[in-house]
Amino acid sequence: MREHIVALAEFLRARHLHVFLETETARCCEIADYPIRALTEFNGDIDLAIVLGGDGTMLGVARALLEHQVPLLGINRGRIGFLTDISAQNMLEDVAKVLAGDYSIEQRLMLHTKILRKGKLLGEGVALNDVVISKGEVAQLLGLEVMIDEQFVHRQRSDGLIVATPTGTTAYALSAGGPILHSALEAITLVPICPHTLSNRPIVIKSTSQVHVKLVDQYESRIHFDGQLIARLYQYDDVYIARAEKMTRLLHPNGHCHYEMLRKKLHWG
Amino acid sequence: MREHIVALAEFLRARHLHVFLETETARCCEIADYPIRALTEFNGDIDLAIVLGGDGTMLGVARALLEHQVPLLGINRGRIGFLTDISAQNMLEDVAKVLAGDYSIEQRLMLHTKILRKGKLLGEGVALNDVVISKGEVAQLLGLEVMIDEQFVHRQRSDGLIVATPTGTTAYALSAGGPILHSALEAITLVPICPHTLSNRPIVIKSTSQVHVKLVDQYESRIHFDGQLIARLYQYDDVYIARAEKMTRLLHPNGHCHYEMLRKKLHWG
Amino acid sequence: MREHIVALAEFLRARHLHVFLETETARCCEIADYPIRALTEFNGDIDLAIVLGGDGTMLGVARALLEHQVPLLGINRGRIGFLTDISAQNMLEDVAKVLAGDYSIEQRLMLHTKILRKGKLLGEGVALNDVVISKGEVAQLLGLEVMIDEQFVHRQRSDGLIVATPTGTTAYALSAGGPILHSALEAITLVPICPHTLSNRPIVIKSTSQVHVKLVDQYESRIHFDGQLIARLYQYDDVYIARAEKMTRLLHPNGHCHYEMLRKKLHWG
Amino acid sequence: MREHIVALAEFLRARHLHVFLETETARCCEIADYPIRALTEFNGDIDLAIVLGGDGTMLGVARALLEHQVPLLGINRGRIGFLTDISAQNMLEDVAKVLAGDYSIEQRLMLHTKILRKGKLLGEGVALNDVVISKGEVAQLLGLEVMIDEQFVHRQRSDGLIVATPTGTTAYALSAGGPILHSALEAITLVPICPHTLSNRPIVIKSTSQVHVKLVDQYESRIHFDGQLIARLYQYDDVYIARAEKMTRLLHPNGHCHYEMLRKKLHWG
Repeated sequence: MREHIVALAEFLRARHLHVFLETETARCCEIADYPIRALTEFNGDIDLAIVLGGDGTMLGVARALLEHQVPLLGINRGRIGFLTDISAQNMLEDVAKVLAGDYSIEQRLMLHTKILRKGKLLGEGVALNDVVISKGEVAQLLGLEVMIDEQFVHRQRSDGLIVATPTGTTAYALSAGGPILHSALEAITLVPICPHTLSNRPIVIKSTSQVHVKLVDQYESRIHFDGQLIARLYQYDDVYIARAEKMTRLLHPNGHCHYEMLRKKLHWG
Repeated sequence: MREHIVALAEFLRARHLHVFLETETARCCEIADYPIRALTEFNGDIDLAIVLGGDGTMLGVARALLEHQVPLLGINRGRIGFLTDISAQNMLEDVAKVLAGDYSIEQRLMLHTKILRKGKLLGEGVALNDVVISKGEVAQLLGLEVMIDEQFVHRQRSDGLIVATPTGTTAYALSAGGPILHSALEAITLVPICPHTLSNRPIVIKSTSQVHVKLVDQYESRIHFDGQLIARLYQYDDVYIARAEKMTRLLHPNGHCHYEMLRKKLHWG
Repeated sequence: MREHIVALAEFLRARHLHVFLETETARCCEIADYPIRALTEFNGDIDLAIVLGGDGTMLGVARALLEHQVPLLGINRGRIGFLTDISAQNMLEDVAKVLAGDYSIEQRLMLHTKILRKGKLLGEGVALNDVVISKGEVAQLLGLEVMIDEQFVHRQRSDGLIVATPTGTTAYALSAGGPILHSALEAITLVPICPHTLSNRPIVIKSTSQVHVKLVDQYESRIHFDGQLIARLYQYDDVYIARAEKMTRLLHPNGHCHYEMLRKKLHWG
Repeated sequence: MREHIVALAEFLRARHLHVFLETETARCCEIADYPIRALTEFNGDIDLAIVLGGDGTMLGVARALLEHQVPLLGINRGRIGFLTDISAQNMLEDVAKVLAGDYSIEQRLMLHTKILRKGKLLGEGVALNDVVISKGEVAQLLGLEVMIDEQFVHRQRSDGLIVATPTGTTAYALSAGGPILHSALEAITLVPICPHTLSNRPIVIKSTSQVHVKLVDQYESRIHFDGQLIARLYQYDDVYIARAEKMTRLLHPNGHCHYEMLRKKLHWG
């Protein structure tokens, strides 16, 4: 990790660019040669955030920097991910391409979620992959009522419900049997997890629709944003999920192809 | 059948509306009291085409009338369908509502397909549900190359490929494991039929994208539009599928709810 | 509930049969006219245990009475279940048939499971439907190593693993995508829950095979027998699942058909 | 091909074994140094049939030699298959192991099928992988009535039905969503192909059960054994599928592991 960061930072500094290290990263890697900044302070004066890590790291940075619309470039030290699609092995070459303007920019929609208990806001936040409501400790099925644009869809009994962006459709939603949405599609998908009714199939709706989920069971359940546990939910809690106002921006060196990545990652053909 | 048509026609004529019967229908039901017209002549001077039958009938009428944009109203004599969502039992009441302006109009996107052999146009046509390329007599897997917007997606071996509109996602595509797309979503889905590679999952793309399928196998295969056999395909044939320029227009008496229909038809909850 | 029990008990007493009520049932329903017995004391001198309730109740009784091989008859007060296939409405008639010898007896295999931590027995027990190892609070995928008859099968990352008897294949395993095993088949099935690798499919093995699951992740997970939380599991714990030595015995009034029940419960055709 | 056959034949002759070449193979490869025999004449005086080819070749040989119970050894010149699990690269070494007695023998059950029209036998035959009844040219759904041991299971509308042995569960049945049955399990599975009713799931039954399928539709359909077109079927035709009396015998050099093959072929882990 450390050596990659140092190599990258030196490469950028050699090109007379201002380089900041994220506080925790600098501390963990014991790199003291660069100014540091908390992730929450990566705001409008930052032109590019380069993320070294896996898709999970990228998700966290995307959530943190959404407000300031800082473009992201993801570099993976292991196998390339769906979001971190530059390999660390040739990162300097790819970063040079980006600096030279040889890149494309991709907007990805995110979800904004509000959790209400007895009508009062309990919490809210954004997610790039998915919002998941799932059953808690007790193994009973979870009972949910789903409304889309306040039209009643159905009462579902299942292990849970995944509401995913196109970005999230290659993650957990795929394992639960969901379809793959092209990353630029203006849509979100609702994928039930092990539904009791076998005809409860994934549905895909406009990204401008609002999903409202009401917990109807007496059992505790849980809500996660991008895999992070956000809250425990109880009977009659309401969750409202809609497209976030802003989109996150991913940079790719030119030559990146969405389908090529799917082919590689999913071992097609 | 006859009695429903007569009842409906009399109901409309009593309201001083000009009623035409489709030629074949008039002949089969031996109804001679109304002017007749071939389906292909239901053009711009027709304000509304009322279809009595099942979803299959509706699909045929939608294809025939797309050019002239005649709005459609579907009445089902048996169990209501996804497209023919008015029950014959209370058709007069529902038609009266529509005539009184108490209706909503829904635009549904259709597919336009071109089949090329050695670069020459072999055939073309439209579909409201789906275009299906499937293996022929020989039981061997079908080999296809799929391109989206001329980007190579993958080479697939399967029983076939369904390219479906949102309307078509509750038909054959659903049986093949595809997702349900909201009828107003501007998207199309590609659903492989029994793919050899288990990670070949349904994908959903923008409705403005073009799907190009190239036959790579030596075996004969077939192409269907809305379940109608259109042509036999051979090695190196090219199929181009894109959104049709025009959309079909479905009328619903007010009170119609897409999700309620899904609930009923799919026995949710 | 009370009235059904009283009616049934009087019906049986009128035929000079010795009737015992299960302790908790007698207490809850405030029925004092019959001798009581704890569930654990329904042993060899009991000829038939009649269960009034749903499939969940039946599962609990089957586990409790396996040792003494008391035959079970299940009566459902609501919709009939897979195990409680006599409707309360005509229970006296059906019970009379059984008393008259007009019944068939069905043996159902059960699972016996041992949980070991650092080689020491942490717990053990039986299940009629399934043993489920699933991820805990943290949303991360669960990492498991699966061995069958001590042959390494694979290392799986998923939400969990269901090991089900034929009886259990119409319960949770079905929701997770598992096949339906005929109730008399000498087999068990392993069904992964939302597996990360899309080719990880349900497998069906001989009922005489032993399944060994090793927890390889650092995250806490959980194990349930028939939906009951049994223990929390940690890294390197071992779970051994094999067919229980004894089988449970279900009585059905003659005329019962396994496929008819599937048709009804799964809305086939 | 030719060089592998010659190498193998010479290797065997050098060990003073009697080597016969199958007639067509000898002709195609133009090898004249060995006595030839038609496949149908590989009878009881043959100790071992060595098959060079893919799984499809092996299936054909298994069907042809079932009657005489000649053991089979499969060698694959490309990627190893599920049945042809010896690589041509180290075939001499593996064959030497087998000749030295260092092998295991595996019995695989096969299906025997009878097709009746108006009660008269239209045809019959055996299959090692599967018997498939599927829709013909017309794209309509196929209507089937399924009986098991003459108990009515359901009337199914689908693209078809696969009846597979354990051996066949890694072939077409897997693509259609079926489970993987351990090769030694005494069971067969019925896997619907794109069923109209979403709760029509694969079922697994005892290998001693008889499957009876009745064609109820007016449309022509087709029946295949191991992918070979056997006959066209029409309304009211009856198909009876049961376990063949004899089993085929596959030899494996010791060290062969069923799960290792699944892992490799299905890219698990």
